[in-house]
Amino acid sequence: MAKFQAPSGFRDFLPGAYRKRGELIRRIREVYESFGYEGIETPALENLAVFLGKGGGENEKLMFRVLKRGAELQRALEKRDELADLALRFDLTVPLARYFATHRGELPSVFKRYHIGPVWRAERAQHGRFREFVQCDVDVLGSSSPLAEADVILATATALAALGFAGLTVRLNSRPLLGRLVRAAGVPEELVGGVFTSIDKLDKVAAGEVKQELLARGVPESAVASLLDFAATAKTLDGDARLAEVERRCGAEAEGLLKQLREVVAATPSLPSGRLVFDPFLARGMDYYTGPIFEVSAENVPFSLAGGGRYDELVGTLSGSPVPAVGFSIGFERVYTLMDERRMFAAGDRAADVLIAIPQAALAAEAVKLATELRAAGLRADLFPGAAKLPQQFALAETKGIPYAATAGEEDLARGAVTFRELATRRNETVPRTEAGAWLKNRLSR
Amino acid sequence: MAKFQAPSGFRDFLPGAYRKRGELIRRIREVYESFGYEGIETPALENLAVFLGKGGGENEKLMFRVLKRGAELQRALEKRDELADLALRFDLTVPLARYFATHRGELPSVFKRYHIGPVWRAERAQHGRFREFVQCDVDVLGSSSPLAEADVILATATALAALGFAGLTVRLNSRPLLGRLVRAAGVPEELVGGVFTSIDKLDKVAAGEVKQELLARGVPESAVASLLDFAATAKTLDGDARLAEVERRCGAEAEGLLKQLREVVAATPSLPSGRLVFDPFLARGMDYYTGPIFEVSAENVPFSLAGGGRYDELVGTLSGSPVPAVGFSIGFERVYTLMDERRMFAAGDRAADVLIAIPQAALAAEAVKLATELRAAGLRADLFPGAAKLPQQFALAETKGIPYAATAGEEDLARGAVTFRELATRRNETVPRTEAGAWLKNRLSR
Repeated sequence: MAKFQAPSGFRDFLPGAYRKRGELIRRIREVYESFGYEGIETPALENLAVFLGKGGGENEKLMFRVLKRGAELQRALEKRDELADLALRFDLTVPLARYFATHRGELPSVFKRYHIGPVWRAERAQHGRFREFVQCDVDVLGSSSPLAEADVILATATALAALGFAGLTVRLNSRPLLGRLVRAAGVPEELVGGVFTSIDKLDKVAAGEVKQELLARGVPESAVASLLDFAATAKTLDGDARLAEVERRCGAEAEGLLKQLREVVAATPSLPSGRLVFDPFLARGMDYYTGPIFEVSAENVPFSLAGGGRYDELVGTLSGSPVPAVGFSIGFERVYTLMDERRMFAAGDRAADVLIAIPQAALAAEAVKLATELRAAGLRADLFPGAAKLPQQFALAETKGIPYAATAGEEDLARGAVTFRELATRRNETVPRTEAGAWLKNRLSR
Repeated sequence: MAKFQAPSGFRDFLPGAYRKRGELIRRIREVYESFGYEGIETPALENLAVFLGKGGGENEKLMFRVLKRGAELQRALEKRDELADLALRFDLTVPLARYFATHRGELPSVFKRYHIGPVWRAERAQHGRFREFVQCDVDVLGSSSPLAEADVILATATALAALGFAGLTVRLNSRPLLGRLVRAAGVPEELVGGVFTSIDKLDKVAAGEVKQELLARGVPESAVASLLDFAATAKTLDGDARLAEVERRCGAEAEGLLKQLREVVAATPSLPSGRLVFDPFLARGMDYYTGPIFEVSAENVPFSLAGGGRYDELVGTLSGSPVPAVGFSIGFERVYTLMDERRMFAAGDRAADVLIAIPQAALAAEAVKLATELRAAGLRADLFPGAAKLPQQFALAETKGIPYAATAGEEDLARGAVTFRELATRRNETVPRTEAGAWLKNRLSR
């Protein structure tokens, strides 16, 4: 029995999962790069101060803090001061803002970057909640044009379509527009933030529940009725009619915001395998959003696969001067789980193409030579690194999902041949050594 | 000016460095996989207890510890107890041992794995020393055969050769054999460990310096003379003669150890671009090595590029039952730095193949369509996400290293054409839209 386990909420990845996760990252990255997004990396740890008060909301409370070291720790203990000086990043957005503030002079004026990497949150252990998980973001910094929204929306939808998700719906709204709508319905200023939180649940829980929650927050009955009434009818309207109704309710003040959304829609003329719809009640959780917000869902998937929005103020809090920014994040872990359950990864993935078995210890060097030849032919050739009977070596190959074993025994060596064993059928075939690589490649591609 | 920077000793990677580091990882991984090694991942954090007393030596002292949270932290402060419950991994070997102990039942009996990922050490800030850096390991667990040594040696040398390093020298020794040699020279038992540390410096500092150090440790003069005398003459002997001389000095007790080394040599009949040599004075720093040890250097490189050895006891300390293990680690950061300085990365790496410029805001949706078409043709097409004059858009493309810009203005649209601009020469060429992808691919591969 193992005495030590991975810490609670943390995961080890076995080789099969490692390969699938790698495939997922590779496929998403290829799409991002086809849109001109450039990869970056930031440290796992940032100075604690970077994270404090940056709109991370609940996430800030879930930070893993790193203990000061040596004399600094002693001083902090004596003075009852902050014990940590660093923290593990809880998302990739705050580090991006810090990165941009640090390197602005070395980066293009309009900076399109992607970042795929782990983040850490001290969540309560719970099914499907991890304390270390991968995030997968594209962002455009330095552009306030609606084309930036269109660009991240199209890149994200294209990536999800490339992964095999069909019937995508990208829901689009605007944070300030939702603010107007809520205020126009008669919600007092001090309750607006809370109303956002409740409204965000509209597509997850029953309308009655949201109603009770809004009333409990002290929102006037007339405002609750007005909002929920519209929420119910909005679903039956087409996009243009929804926009028109929001326009009617919000009045002239909302004109600029509506124009912005219409431009985003106009600049994304078509989505691969899906559509872009205006949803006046989309709210999104993060405090730092300042403009358009979006989420993607797919047919037969009960949760959203990606979310994002415009956050024009966050970079400014770290660099001193405002920088418009918009981003979109694919829910890597839920996409991975879903694709794994639905067998959406490429089939036939295996540890190696062939195991070079060693018929007797004295022939080890000959086996190494054979492995080298097959690798030179472009094959992945595993060598059995030990002393064991052939059946045990074949069994190991099967455990690893390797389809063939190759052996060059004394007889084979004498006549320049190799014997291949197809492990599933237990059939052997002896082929001339000079043709071994070609023979196996031919077999594998069948 | 940026108010916040990355923490001292930590690095941000700009897109160019990100691409090169990704290329390095990809190329090493391909070789490891061609040898049948399977990728795994373990958490960045482990329970603190996993790291304590596991032969990490100095590295343990450099651990970043993660503060307990909530009520547990309060309790720890009140009781003046340990304040941390987790720690960032300082290498990939201790986590591998923990991983194997946890998952033994799910893994092949002989487990060949690679792991490429970051580790963290609270080093003093110093040129070329980072607090977060990538390690890159192959290991074979579950085999005590010298073929396991041969396998990791060949995989590592093949990876370094594939990266472009020539004239590789893999130095091979045995930890217990070095112990016999040192004791046979007359070093008292309690000084053996210290002598290893001094001997390890023989290829880095002058022999006179090592001599002073050994004398200062209290090693008898006759023992110092015997060791340094052999160290000097050993260089002039060929491999077999060196082995014979060690045999003579160590006596019959060393027979098994010498046989083990000879078998490793026999099983690695040839190395790509290099040779395997027996070096009786190779010592290696880590305490957990129990058998053969090795290091690789390359022509015109003043430091070793990779190091490893057999550690048959480490896994047992975590799983309760002994598991033979041998590993080899490529010094990722020094290899990266060297390859970058010597321009050994693939040339022509760029953010995208083409920038789709937007001649006027009203044509944005048309530009998106053009980008989609070129991407479907297999090109990486960046779209300028904003409103700017064409010269500014072209300038941005040049900043990002993008060689061409494509524009479809009203005239082009009317006649089904696209205008490409080669940014370096400022020459424009208008081509039929249906041929645009093929035209550009043709141009790029010139």
